[in-house]
Amino acid sequence: MAGSSFGTLFRFTTWGESHGPAIGVVVDGVPSRIALGEPDIQQWLDKRRPGQSRYTTQRQEPDQVKILSGVFEGQTTGTPISLMIDNVDQRSKDYRNIADRFRPGHADYTYWKKYGIRDYRGGGRASARETASRVAAGAVARKVLSSLGGPDITIRGALVQIGPHAIDRAAWDWSAVEDNPFWCPDRAMAAHWAEYLDTVRKAGSSVGAVIEIVASGVPAGLGEPVYDKLDGDLARAMMTINAVKAVEIGAGFGAVVLGGEDNGDEMRMQDGKVTFLSNNAGGVLGGISTGQDVVVRFAVKPTSSILKAMRTVDSEGNDTEIETHGRHDPCVGIRAVPVGEAMMACVLADHLLRARALGGV
Amino acid sequence: MAGSSFGTLFRFTTWGESHGPAIGVVVDGVPSRIALGEPDIQQWLDKRRPGQSRYTTQRQEPDQVKILSGVFEGQTTGTPISLMIDNVDQRSKDYRNIADRFRPGHADYTYWKKYGIRDYRGGGRASARETASRVAAGAVARKVLSSLGGPDITIRGALVQIGPHAIDRAAWDWSAVEDNPFWCPDRAMAAHWAEYLDTVRKAGSSVGAVIEIVASGVPAGLGEPVYDKLDGDLARAMMTINAVKAVEIGAGFGAVVLGGEDNGDEMRMQDGKVTFLSNNAGGVLGGISTGQDVVVRFAVKPTSSILKAMRTVDSEGNDTEIETHGRHDPCVGIRAVPVGEAMMACVLADHLLRARALGGV
Amino acid sequence: MAGSSFGTLFRFTTWGESHGPAIGVVVDGVPSRIALGEPDIQQWLDKRRPGQSRYTTQRQEPDQVKILSGVFEGQTTGTPISLMIDNVDQRSKDYRNIADRFRPGHADYTYWKKYGIRDYRGGGRASARETASRVAAGAVARKVLSSLGGPDITIRGALVQIGPHAIDRAAWDWSAVEDNPFWCPDRAMAAHWAEYLDTVRKAGSSVGAVIEIVASGVPAGLGEPVYDKLDGDLARAMMTINAVKAVEIGAGFGAVVLGGEDNGDEMRMQDGKVTFLSNNAGGVLGGISTGQDVVVRFAVKPTSSILKAMRTVDSEGNDTEIETHGRHDPCVGIRAVPVGEAMMACVLADHLLRARALGGV
Amino acid sequence: MAGSSFGTLFRFTTWGESHGPAIGVVVDGVPSRIALGEPDIQQWLDKRRPGQSRYTTQRQEPDQVKILSGVFEGQTTGTPISLMIDNVDQRSKDYRNIADRFRPGHADYTYWKKYGIRDYRGGGRASARETASRVAAGAVARKVLSSLGGPDITIRGALVQIGPHAIDRAAWDWSAVEDNPFWCPDRAMAAHWAEYLDTVRKAGSSVGAVIEIVASGVPAGLGEPVYDKLDGDLARAMMTINAVKAVEIGAGFGAVVLGGEDNGDEMRMQDGKVTFLSNNAGGVLGGISTGQDVVVRFAVKPTSSILKAMRTVDSEGNDTEIETHGRHDPCVGIRAVPVGEAMMACVLADHLLRARALGGV
Repeated sequence: MAGSSFGTLFRFTTWGESHGPAIGVVVDGVPSRIALGEPDIQQWLDKRRPGQSRYTTQRQEPDQVKILSGVFEGQTTGTPISLMIDNVDQRSKDYRNIADRFRPGHADYTYWKKYGIRDYRGGGRASARETASRVAAGAVARKVLSSLGGPDITIRGALVQIGPHAIDRAAWDWSAVEDNPFWCPDRAMAAHWAEYLDTVRKAGSSVGAVIEIVASGVPAGLGEPVYDKLDGDLARAMMTINAVKAVEIGAGFGAVVLGGEDNGDEMRMQDGKVTFLSNNAGGVLGGISTGQDVVVRFAVKPTSSILKAMRTVDSEGNDTEIETHGRHDPCVGIRAVPVGEAMMACVLADHLLRARALGGV
Repeated sequence: MAGSSFGTLFRFTTWGESHGPAIGVVVDGVPSRIALGEPDIQQWLDKRRPGQSRYTTQRQEPDQVKILSGVFEGQTTGTPISLMIDNVDQRSKDYRNIADRFRPGHADYTYWKKYGIRDYRGGGRASARETASRVAAGAVARKVLSSLGGPDITIRGALVQIGPHAIDRAAWDWSAVEDNPFWCPDRAMAAHWAEYLDTVRKAGSSVGAVIEIVASGVPAGLGEPVYDKLDGDLARAMMTINAVKAVEIGAGFGAVVLGGEDNGDEMRMQDGKVTFLSNNAGGVLGGISTGQDVVVRFAVKPTSSILKAMRTVDSEGNDTEIETHGRHDPCVGIRAVPVGEAMMACVLADHLLRARALGGV
Repeated sequence: MAGSSFGTLFRFTTWGESHGPAIGVVVDGVPSRIALGEPDIQQWLDKRRPGQSRYTTQRQEPDQVKILSGVFEGQTTGTPISLMIDNVDQRSKDYRNIADRFRPGHADYTYWKKYGIRDYRGGGRASARETASRVAAGAVARKVLSSLGGPDITIRGALVQIGPHAIDRAAWDWSAVEDNPFWCPDRAMAAHWAEYLDTVRKAGSSVGAVIEIVASGVPAGLGEPVYDKLDGDLARAMMTINAVKAVEIGAGFGAVVLGGEDNGDEMRMQDGKVTFLSNNAGGVLGGISTGQDVVVRFAVKPTSSILKAMRTVDSEGNDTEIETHGRHDPCVGIRAVPVGEAMMACVLADHLLRARALGGV
Repeated sequence: MAGSSFGTLFRFTTWGESHGPAIGVVVDGVPSRIALGEPDIQQWLDKRRPGQSRYTTQRQEPDQVKILSGVFEGQTTGTPISLMIDNVDQRSKDYRNIADRFRPGHADYTYWKKYGIRDYRGGGRASARETASRVAAGAVARKVLSSLGGPDITIRGALVQIGPHAIDRAAWDWSAVEDNPFWCPDRAMAAHWAEYLDTVRKAGSSVGAVIEIVASGVPAGLGEPVYDKLDGDLARAMMTINAVKAVEIGAGFGAVVLGGEDNGDEMRMQDGKVTFLSNNAGGVLGGISTGQDVVVRFAVKPTSSILKAMRTVDSEGNDTEIETHGRHDPCVGIRAVPVGEAMMACVLADHLLRARALGGV
């Protein structure tokens, strides 16, 4: 319970630092006889992979995954699946400038306070590089969902706001998401973001983003009240992604200004099925899925490493300054989209297995 | 792992339904030799107790707690502390009208889908009555914090928004919080809310609220990266409170529109101590406490039970309507303040114990 | 994780001290719609109840169980089941003689070292009274097994050795078990034990016992390798019962002297089913049930409270002596039979639920 | 909770099959700033390594461990430690003969029943090869114990019985243990075992063994009653080792024949310290360590793979026979000694960390 594991039945444990030899994840709790190969995982890692546009980090990592256990003749065996990704681009960059100084907005100071030692190279364990392991686990979770939860479960993510610029939700087009480097469902806004981020980047600054993850086809009945509610686990799942500062379900903070009569999702029978007339609940009532889309949004803060000097202190207790040099990443939120999708998949896979045991499916 | 427990080392398990004979909580993981008596717990239950103003539910419950184990001669013994609260006001009210119909916004439908049976009386297990058990556990957590974490740890909550009416943060006055039935830190706004809620109540409607919980004096070093981050656990803790739909830490969603240079909390040495010049992080970096105030906000949706008829279906698959009769509770968020405080206390107590074992204090 | 809970999906948490107002258990993870009433539980508590023969403790406890939650209209609802048993016979006996002295063989010294405080009355939390809570949980587990695991699962226990006197296994007769106060399956030996124990009791001494628990009708496939093996969990389950010092599965220690050809249970098809020709494995191979009887034996040490003075020390660090006065219990192992059955039921129920989620049933 | 993890705070997760590319373990919950290098781990793997005498398996594995994370500049950082061991000797041996037939005494049948698929090569996940990962984790645990538990904690194991031949405990000499291929503390018996095992091996048969693990210098106060008792966790730890069928603590089954006055360990003050005059408790009372040696014994069944044909069935439901060819391993118990030591170290490290949090050290 030292913090590197997530999930109860579908449970994964990640390991590895930004500049160690490799990173990886052990996924335990995968039922047997699910077809699984490296390409099933690689496709999602490729989506998260850095260096694919000028709007994200320029670190070059092939992020090639290897399956080391748990799969035999193309099928899961029910035993733990160990996945490993070598770190290739461990730049010989000199990290000595951050070895003794705490970068504002980063975990440098808190790791040092907690552990008295830190692998400062690239952020060590606190690096967003860890999220590649989440994406790998999420790929396995997707296979569990498609095998055991029905073929209709889909999990999709999109960026819905960068800085102050939110999309026009009326213009939402899922097919647009793959067509721009921002996973933006509003084509017009994607073009606008491109210009805006160039400006931010040239100014050496950075901005935050809001990501929305939607899971469709989720059966009603997932979630274990009252502390392992589906939305409680989703909130934790998203909040633990690097740089995330807020999570909301369905109408979220927006529900505060609604009257009860507008917020409550009314129901009607349609074609013999219970149908909700709206989805302010975001697909979760009382911590249990309703059968509607499960809708989660989370906020990613602006990249903390910027080209501007900021005031800080060093480990000796002296006032000093620090700034990042060279290329930087103006909006870390962009790459959080596949990570959010992966965490949604892992939470759903876990609760699907739990519901098989305890009721709900 | 069926969902009724919370925490790792400081771990509590709640039980009980709204209209059963009693509710209760077993708190395990309390170190020995901490002074604890029923009044230590009762004071917080009194704060949460229903029926104290016309703005909250009129259910009359003395909520008298009994300590059944784990305390000997006024001190904890290290063994599990069992706390029980009798249900007194189990109105003979006829719940048959909701026995077969699903109230919009409530967990009626999802419990029925998941379990195929539900104790419909007063919402059963899904009732906010369960939060009394959280408050009792939180009272024990506060004693753990004050005994082992230092006397400076304080946990306070306030309501900062009702419907569209947010407080003026410049007018924040902690001393005001106890002086109005809303736990509002802005005296002027409290008066305004009183009028506003009367209107809402008379209209048979309801509104949501935003609660802010602030923990001061928290030592740096609490939180276990990367999945048991302090903010991840807080997000889960708050999201599992009834009717909560959103959680944010520090600047939260507001961080999205900040530039990196404005969001990153700069540091300076002051009086020989590391001091942050702002607190957009909300006291958590990389999932570990910084030593600043830990600041969490969460949104409570409008009360789902209102005096207006809403469309729904019944368990036989027929379209129907449902409405609440008699007095109702126009803003359930008000009573969430002591609950949010309790959950903050439990999360901090758990991480304080974990840090004793694994590093951080 | 402070130690008062057992199980993963079928999970119970016990609380209470020997001389507190009550003891109890919260059982979480019980699927819904299982018929359950207080008599279902009471029957097993009655079997364990003290004071039923002159061979066990003379404490008089009705051990009347109350269901406080989790059951609605005679059926489980999927929510936690809280069970409480009042302590009635809290003798006004003076426990001051053990308040400061450590009884050899008891947990007095270790609780004092660990916690610095202890509820010395009747052994406090370390009292075998806690096992009533196990029996209550076990009764619920039996209902889970009969509802979800098939009607053929039976769990029976017997005492197979007292002191040096082991039963003649050839004379094993399950129908004899209910006919004597020892749960002895060998009628002749039961008579012999009666005489033997009278001698032991009159001498103010005590002896140990071996209990055997047999679960029949268990489906193949239960157990999660490699650390949550069925036999690993059974070993832990039995070893945590008060006074237990040894556990074995199947041939157990006896397997050491067998040749591989005699120990390995051969298989043959019989009536279209895989049939084992022997059961040295005790129904578990590789940590997974084989479908044969699951057979566990455990050793209970002699009662530590005897009428003879023993050397010890007090909490002030002085040498002293201690002895028990009045009636005593010459063989605590006798009452461990229903407790061992209960723990077997709980382990099987937990693994049955886990197998529903992860494979095996 | 799918079974591949062990421990609560000091928690490790193993992965890998006998004939996959590698095996490994992720150790989470290691406090920071503990010196750790590959040689610290390698020394214990070398002790367990196969092929070192004619009495154990002839598989040739260098078992070279690599540290992939969690260590920076020779010290632990508090982040998960990933250890990997390549499988080198994946013989091109034809495993087709066991692909469809179930070897008696092995997990072939149960894995097939549970998972419907199995990696039959060398036993797959059920192979004793997995124990190398335990030994690696145990090496880390030893470092935790020596750093945080005091330099006096030592963990040693010995073989005390092979087949019917038990050592003379009066001849126990720890220095003898390293001098013979059996870890036998009785030099005379070691010579006798050599002859005996040659006979067994030549007969194509096998025998079982009893291993004793002794931990000295363990502080009083470790163990969390009542379900996470130190002896309960040790029982589970040992029982999950491949081929183990029985576990006992202290006097174990032998306690049954003792009178209470002989079994209870009396106490006296010696040099200002509480001293026990015997150790029938095996260092544990009420589930909590007493400060005496913690003494555990466990039984390993005879090797199931022997040169004699045994009756079995195949996955098609046909009666058939199976036998092992070539060299075999007449007593798998021998190599269980370092594994038992490792599990003892892991249990103690876990409980040492827990006691730091909850009391006891």
